[in-house]
Amino acid sequence: MYKVTPVNENFKHMLHGADYNPDQWLDTPEIIDEDMRLFKLANCNGMSVGIFSWATLEPEEDKYDFSFLDNILDKVAAAGGKIILATPSGARPKWMSDKYKEVLRVANDGTRNFFGVRHNHCYTSPVYREKITKINRLLAERYKDHPALYAWHISNEFGGECYCDLCLGAFKNWLKEKYSNDINKLNFQWWTKFWSHTYSSFDQIEFPSPKGETQVHGLNLDFKRFVTHQTTDFIKAECEPLREITPNIPITTNLMWPFFDLNYHELKKSLDFISFDNYPMWHAPQGDLHEASFTALAHDWYRSLMHKPFLMMESTPSLVNWKPINKLKKPGVNILSSLQAVAHGSDSVQYFQWRKSRGSSEKLHGAVVDHCGHENTRVFKEVSELGAILKKLDDVVGSYTKTEAAILFDYENLWALNDAQGYNRYDKKLIETVHKFYQPFWKRGINTEIIGYDDDFSKYSVIIAPMLYMVNDKLIDKFDAYVKNGGTLVATYMLGTVNENDLCYLGGWPGGKLKEIFGIWNEEIDSLYPQESNGMRAKSGKEYKVVDYCELIHANSAEVLATYTDDFYKGMPAVCVNNYGKGKAYYIACRDTGEFTDALIGYLAEQNNLAKAINIDLPAGTTAQSRENGKDKFIFLQNYNDFDVEISLDKTYYELINGNTLSGKVTLNAYSVLILKTDC
Amino acid sequence: MYKVTPVNENFKHMLHGADYNPDQWLDTPEIIDEDMRLFKLANCNGMSVGIFSWATLEPEEDKYDFSFLDNILDKVAAAGGKIILATPSGARPKWMSDKYKEVLRVANDGTRNFFGVRHNHCYTSPVYREKITKINRLLAERYKDHPALYAWHISNEFGGECYCDLCLGAFKNWLKEKYSNDINKLNFQWWTKFWSHTYSSFDQIEFPSPKGETQVHGLNLDFKRFVTHQTTDFIKAECEPLREITPNIPITTNLMWPFFDLNYHELKKSLDFISFDNYPMWHAPQGDLHEASFTALAHDWYRSLMHKPFLMMESTPSLVNWKPINKLKKPGVNILSSLQAVAHGSDSVQYFQWRKSRGSSEKLHGAVVDHCGHENTRVFKEVSELGAILKKLDDVVGSYTKTEAAILFDYENLWALNDAQGYNRYDKKLIETVHKFYQPFWKRGINTEIIGYDDDFSKYSVIIAPMLYMVNDKLIDKFDAYVKNGGTLVATYMLGTVNENDLCYLGGWPGGKLKEIFGIWNEEIDSLYPQESNGMRAKSGKEYKVVDYCELIHANSAEVLATYTDDFYKGMPAVCVNNYGKGKAYYIACRDTGEFTDALIGYLAEQNNLAKAINIDLPAGTTAQSRENGKDKFIFLQNYNDFDVEISLDKTYYELINGNTLSGKVTLNAYSVLILKTDC
Amino acid sequence: MYKVTPVNENFKHMLHGADYNPDQWLDTPEIIDEDMRLFKLANCNGMSVGIFSWATLEPEEDKYDFSFLDNILDKVAAAGGKIILATPSGARPKWMSDKYKEVLRVANDGTRNFFGVRHNHCYTSPVYREKITKINRLLAERYKDHPALYAWHISNEFGGECYCDLCLGAFKNWLKEKYSNDINKLNFQWWTKFWSHTYSSFDQIEFPSPKGETQVHGLNLDFKRFVTHQTTDFIKAECEPLREITPNIPITTNLMWPFFDLNYHELKKSLDFISFDNYPMWHAPQGDLHEASFTALAHDWYRSLMHKPFLMMESTPSLVNWKPINKLKKPGVNILSSLQAVAHGSDSVQYFQWRKSRGSSEKLHGAVVDHCGHENTRVFKEVSELGAILKKLDDVVGSYTKTEAAILFDYENLWALNDAQGYNRYDKKLIETVHKFYQPFWKRGINTEIIGYDDDFSKYSVIIAPMLYMVNDKLIDKFDAYVKNGGTLVATYMLGTVNENDLCYLGGWPGGKLKEIFGIWNEEIDSLYPQESNGMRAKSGKEYKVVDYCELIHANSAEVLATYTDDFYKGMPAVCVNNYGKGKAYYIACRDTGEFTDALIGYLAEQNNLAKAINIDLPAGTTAQSRENGKDKFIFLQNYNDFDVEISLDKTYYELINGNTLSGKVTLNAYSVLILKTDC
Repeated sequence: MYKVTPVNENFKHMLHGADYNPDQWLDTPEIIDEDMRLFKLANCNGMSVGIFSWATLEPEEDKYDFSFLDNILDKVAAAGGKIILATPSGARPKWMSDKYKEVLRVANDGTRNFFGVRHNHCYTSPVYREKITKINRLLAERYKDHPALYAWHISNEFGGECYCDLCLGAFKNWLKEKYSNDINKLNFQWWTKFWSHTYSSFDQIEFPSPKGETQVHGLNLDFKRFVTHQTTDFIKAECEPLREITPNIPITTNLMWPFFDLNYHELKKSLDFISFDNYPMWHAPQGDLHEASFTALAHDWYRSLMHKPFLMMESTPSLVNWKPINKLKKPGVNILSSLQAVAHGSDSVQYFQWRKSRGSSEKLHGAVVDHCGHENTRVFKEVSELGAILKKLDDVVGSYTKTEAAILFDYENLWALNDAQGYNRYDKKLIETVHKFYQPFWKRGINTEIIGYDDDFSKYSVIIAPMLYMVNDKLIDKFDAYVKNGGTLVATYMLGTVNENDLCYLGGWPGGKLKEIFGIWNEEIDSLYPQESNGMRAKSGKEYKVVDYCELIHANSAEVLATYTDDFYKGMPAVCVNNYGKGKAYYIACRDTGEFTDALIGYLAEQNNLAKAINIDLPAGTTAQSRENGKDKFIFLQNYNDFDVEISLDKTYYELINGNTLSGKVTLNAYSVLILKTDC
Repeated sequence: MYKVTPVNENFKHMLHGADYNPDQWLDTPEIIDEDMRLFKLANCNGMSVGIFSWATLEPEEDKYDFSFLDNILDKVAAAGGKIILATPSGARPKWMSDKYKEVLRVANDGTRNFFGVRHNHCYTSPVYREKITKINRLLAERYKDHPALYAWHISNEFGGECYCDLCLGAFKNWLKEKYSNDINKLNFQWWTKFWSHTYSSFDQIEFPSPKGETQVHGLNLDFKRFVTHQTTDFIKAECEPLREITPNIPITTNLMWPFFDLNYHELKKSLDFISFDNYPMWHAPQGDLHEASFTALAHDWYRSLMHKPFLMMESTPSLVNWKPINKLKKPGVNILSSLQAVAHGSDSVQYFQWRKSRGSSEKLHGAVVDHCGHENTRVFKEVSELGAILKKLDDVVGSYTKTEAAILFDYENLWALNDAQGYNRYDKKLIETVHKFYQPFWKRGINTEIIGYDDDFSKYSVIIAPMLYMVNDKLIDKFDAYVKNGGTLVATYMLGTVNENDLCYLGGWPGGKLKEIFGIWNEEIDSLYPQESNGMRAKSGKEYKVVDYCELIHANSAEVLATYTDDFYKGMPAVCVNNYGKGKAYYIACRDTGEFTDALIGYLAEQNNLAKAINIDLPAGTTAQSRENGKDKFIFLQNYNDFDVEISLDKTYYELINGNTLSGKVTLNAYSVLILKTDC
Repeated sequence: MYKVTPVNENFKHMLHGADYNPDQWLDTPEIIDEDMRLFKLANCNGMSVGIFSWATLEPEEDKYDFSFLDNILDKVAAAGGKIILATPSGARPKWMSDKYKEVLRVANDGTRNFFGVRHNHCYTSPVYREKITKINRLLAERYKDHPALYAWHISNEFGGECYCDLCLGAFKNWLKEKYSNDINKLNFQWWTKFWSHTYSSFDQIEFPSPKGETQVHGLNLDFKRFVTHQTTDFIKAECEPLREITPNIPITTNLMWPFFDLNYHELKKSLDFISFDNYPMWHAPQGDLHEASFTALAHDWYRSLMHKPFLMMESTPSLVNWKPINKLKKPGVNILSSLQAVAHGSDSVQYFQWRKSRGSSEKLHGAVVDHCGHENTRVFKEVSELGAILKKLDDVVGSYTKTEAAILFDYENLWALNDAQGYNRYDKKLIETVHKFYQPFWKRGINTEIIGYDDDFSKYSVIIAPMLYMVNDKLIDKFDAYVKNGGTLVATYMLGTVNENDLCYLGGWPGGKLKEIFGIWNEEIDSLYPQESNGMRAKSGKEYKVVDYCELIHANSAEVLATYTDDFYKGMPAVCVNNYGKGKAYYIACRDTGEFTDALIGYLAEQNNLAKAINIDLPAGTTAQSRENGKDKFIFLQNYNDFDVEISLDKTYYELINGNTLSGKVTLNAYSVLILKTDC
């Protein structure tokens, strides 16, 4: 089931480096030379280049100049480093937009954007695809045998939509295919009789728009699906020449977090490995403990996309410049935050950016090298120190993460739920709820995955399924089999409200066989104002605070574990469990403030003997994750408190950072990490 | 003066039913059959159909299919029910927008909307009028003799504006007529010399727009008047074939609340009876007592439009889906809220919606029949229970509401005041002020009307005239006659600032003869920040808190009843009364927090012997309204508290719901109603 | 250095009057006659006319009618008054927009505005310039010898941008000139390699737009510079015929406050004297003391633009109508607020408006004459009382303000800083910081100037330079010379981050020689959340609260005066001073809440013997400013408290308002002024 999978078979070291834009400094070659000196001094070995270089590479149509890339690839190779080479579609040259208007996006009011910013291109435009394919082919042919070439980095942070006629044509075709060219199938699934929106033909379809249609949820949902489809299709077009010419160079694109507008479960199919850009808000009002577990969730989420190591493609060594308040990382936090990524499965620590640009909008974004230009800064020193640590982690590269627990998340469910009119209309809080269920695993040091509807459920002892408003018959069958075969499934309020096209299940909620699996019927759902609360009383007598949602459910075959303490539904079931086949199906009918969720996960972890990264009690604010390579197990003990804590080890370990042996009581310093090594 | 006026002479029962969209379920005729079974089980007798059915009725241009309506009307008739038949202009088929772009609205930036949502049509478009008139004619001819046909429901929830060239042409013509084709009359009334906006001809007129003119208040005001005119004109066009073919079938359209963008005092002239959609926010942070009196205000407002019974055309049996937080109604509240409507003059309890739609944006809106599809729900049972009560109220149908007190409200005054630059610029609070004056009547069980400038004032002993910023000479004359003849008139701050075209009165405020009627001169008006307050001290020595507005008035002939306690105008008059002819004119120069208003209304009620629905003291949170049919008087005792209260009756009554005789101390349960019957 | 400079050599009285719009009242000549009676009664002597009269003066193209102006100028002259004559470009007639679309502005989305409101014209349009030049020529020729003509008032409250193709052409030309027609110079300064935005030619330039480019700061900055350039160019075009025909009539335009979108340091070059519109928010939640010093700052700011007396061109005698809450001025406050202007260098008290207009958007704005039309109002009486005082101030006219302290402010720095991505991204608070440094001078009665980068620094003993994010080499050289020659310079966080094109200084902050002047290196800058704070401890041991920004600086040659008390940079320098040449350069690395700033300014004032308007201790809430005419010194003692205070005079003075002699303890009434006269 598990195997060791380095991103690039030919480079078995942790990657350490940054986005690097030497094309901005061609006038001052001495700065580029200095970069190479600092590159080594910082213990770096990998650079991402060419991300926004199209105007430099092709200054006039069909006139190319690769000299700066030649130079950089050679220099980095000479310094013992590797290159993640970007395709330049993240931004296009001015001449292209001027000559071919169609490459620019059209907004949802039907007007075309002007040239500017980045992204801002049509994913359908044949001209744009032709241009990017051509330059990708040239890049691949030129560098296919270059020793520095490590991976391809397709474009940059894909996102956004285009509403042009070319895209509309593609959308109509996509719909025709989905609905077997039968407009009445579409009419039924979109329930277009409502408000007299019946279509006579696919030609009548228009995009959703605030100037037109916003209320047909089936249209909204299919449009979002189409955007993922078309973006993925664009990536595939970009990849075609690369796969042909450099079949052994792995391909990725840098995903974003938190970002849910593209269905990464679909988009990942066009990639060879996952990478993402990681920008936690340390030292913010929500607190470092919140941020630590929310960032841990991100890492687990992206590792789970392919169930193998990923790259952290961007992070900042100090601060960012685009948040409302841009704080410095405190001493130690860059190392802690970077090793957190590795703990969860990253085989890299990459920064945005190597050197602060001199002008334009990201000149104040943190970098390894500041405007002062030298190495005598707090930030540079910490980067260099981290680089030295990463050099000790060769054995961790490609290692896997063993998991027995999973949280189920579906991008399309999120879209449909957030678009749903009802409940708390503007603040459904699905992501917060996923996080709320994730935290109790994290604080116990239980490796966890975030999986999708298409994943194999049988690998997990426990699956949490929060707020699955939108389901489908196949999923229900998978649930049925999973629980029958002994799985523990935990679902919540809103389960099984609509099918995959946002049509309500008839016959009572949760839809179809879910009523049997969970042994309940959900008659009504009450939404609470933010200033309101209810309570639930468990069979033990313990009470928990309840907020936001209270479903009025009836227990059929299920056993009632807790009941409401207030309002007219006082005494009705709040939590149930149903013995179903060899397994158990829990239904949580209301949202608690976290205490109950934590107690439940603790109970389930015990009942199911969920393995912990290390078999000890972890003090508050600390956690542990583990990776294995078949021989060794690496345990990353992390302390997110701003004070030292004492930990009692269960046995003797070798600690990789300091290179010594530890046992018994050890001190884990404020904002620090220990990497323990033991046998698998 | 009063008479018994049922909506439809041929049906003297309370109407109970819902908006019904069987066209969404034509694929599953068994569901429609089940609807008929449930219809009877729910004690219903009336359905509104066809509201958004255009695409079903005319799937292609000039190809009609009325079969589903034939079927439903027959089925409902067979079940002993009645049909409120809608004209389908609330939304148009896609083919129509595609072929005739002009049917779609143009936004105030001059760009045309895309197809989508509902409404969204041009009220001027000849094509649209031709299309709707044609289908209305076909509907009227087809169903004119159908036994189920009870009333016409024109379109749906009229609102919004169109800024197309056709509308601009109509606007210019409307202005030409208003200003006798003399552009200088318009220039004077709009005071266009200000900022050099003088027009040379009517052809130069443009619509107000955030991209152009926003600051000519006369233009803004006339534009809003035109929107009401053109909407009414559209309704009249819709009605023409109906009035010709079915002269005995009464016509309505469903008004909205709270909604003030159309002048319902004008729009009502195109209708035979009033109906409106009633969606109170029970159990919200503002509290049920607030919501009870605010909803009572709505009912009285719409009854007063024609001074006769109306229909509550929509309400929800459980929750809605379009509020930020969508709460369930607690047990009993649907019956209470429904009978509140009847108490205030409704001859119906109609719901939106009969059955939850399966898809699209209102699928989560409350309904009599939920997605589970059966009758075994809390909501269905309460609907059915209410239906049984309504069957006992045949004698109430068409009965009238005797009133001696009125509150004066003018839609155009609201528009002008809200558009006025000055005072608290963005939050004038006229509607809240109307409500503040309404509450003291409501809590005392005094039947009250909300009347317009054109109503007959002589019917009322007391008239409250809050915040009449915009008046006209005819109104001033009516005030003069009213007070001289013995009436009690209560006006407030901002009285008589501008005339009907928003030109200030010269010579001091309040304008013209108002200074004599009220015996005061208003020199200045101070606006207070939300965190500020002042006070007023009554002659009795009692003090009240004052907020928002303090006018610096001088008492001429008036007697000073209260003076300010603070600021540099301490000691100046805050409340005056002027003996004028046989009557009294009160002037309230500042806004109080409610305590003073309550005391004043209590005093005036006593002084003027205003009749109460029942001659007892009503505990807090309860109220009573009465209706009479010339023989019987029906008293609706209501308790909006979530606890029981005890009431001491003044005599013996027959109670209709439970069918027993009551006297002395009786318990009025939490969230419940008693309907007492006595002689007139 | 100082001299007496009346605005108009031929009129050596304080100007007192208002914006006057008799063109709105041509139908009622009796009202204009009444105006003249009231004009004298109000002790007025100056009227601004013609500001929005274009439609009256040129009702059809090329048909002119100056009769109303003839009449008014004659009448005002007969009443002994003066006229400030406006050019009418503040709004254009409807016929012009209809015939020449190009006169209307284009918005930043590329769509042209509709006719409406005021301003809203293209500054580049040849047609518009031709039209305004022609009517200006006619006005100048007609009134050049009129005895009432006092000054020209160009247009009204310039502001806003146009994005039309004519403006784009002008922008491209402006850029070509700035960058010597070398597109690569522009590419370098705008750092266009970032995100592949390199231009091949000036023809490729587009305006910044939310629909296109927003992230190229060099473009944003140059665009704002261009807007100032083009506006100034328009003013120059307007002035051309006036300067030719009436060379002795001084020209101004009414500036706004607080308004920073145009660089007044540039725009002033087209004017002969400064005037501005002054609308403080008295009695608002922020308190009168805040408002008093913020308004004082405005007066000093505008006086400093030309270092000579200015006119307060607009103010309200009572309230305005465009603020969210529009409060009355309390008794005395109009006199206090008006004499505050005079205290700081105004030679006028002008109001908007003389008479409330009858209709349109400013009808509820305060005026000397209310809608009641007579003089028996609180407001009129106070205006008249003030007029009588102003008549006693002939000797003050043209007198100068001696200053030894200055605050450095640069409009372009503000634009660049606010556009910068980083720090607190949306709330940099530069203006608040200027005010924070201004207050300690103001409360001590120390005359202060607000100067620009081009001003002569050598005149000042102390210069405060807050938040100079954007500097240039010339400025650095001026700082160098200033401090070397004995000046005291105080700079703060963010100093010297970028050069004049928003390119970062390389080699460490603050840029270039600033590191030597201040003796520090600024390694990093931490931004704090609003709920956070740090502290600084001065050498004295005293601690101050620190918020928003903390720089991590290193003292090289500088002496550390205070260090941080918290966070990981506890103990690092927070404030330093560097002895440099004969002077001192202070660097403040963090923002304090005001207490430290106050202490520092107090210390510097003492150390540098900064002269005070009057050599006494001023109670809280009072201040003093002085003006001199070479013979007399006038001291304006002001009390902004709502209670009386006692003041101990240092010697005997003649008091101008009451015409008596004062010495020893005197009472300064709530909201009042005393004007003391003494020898220079």
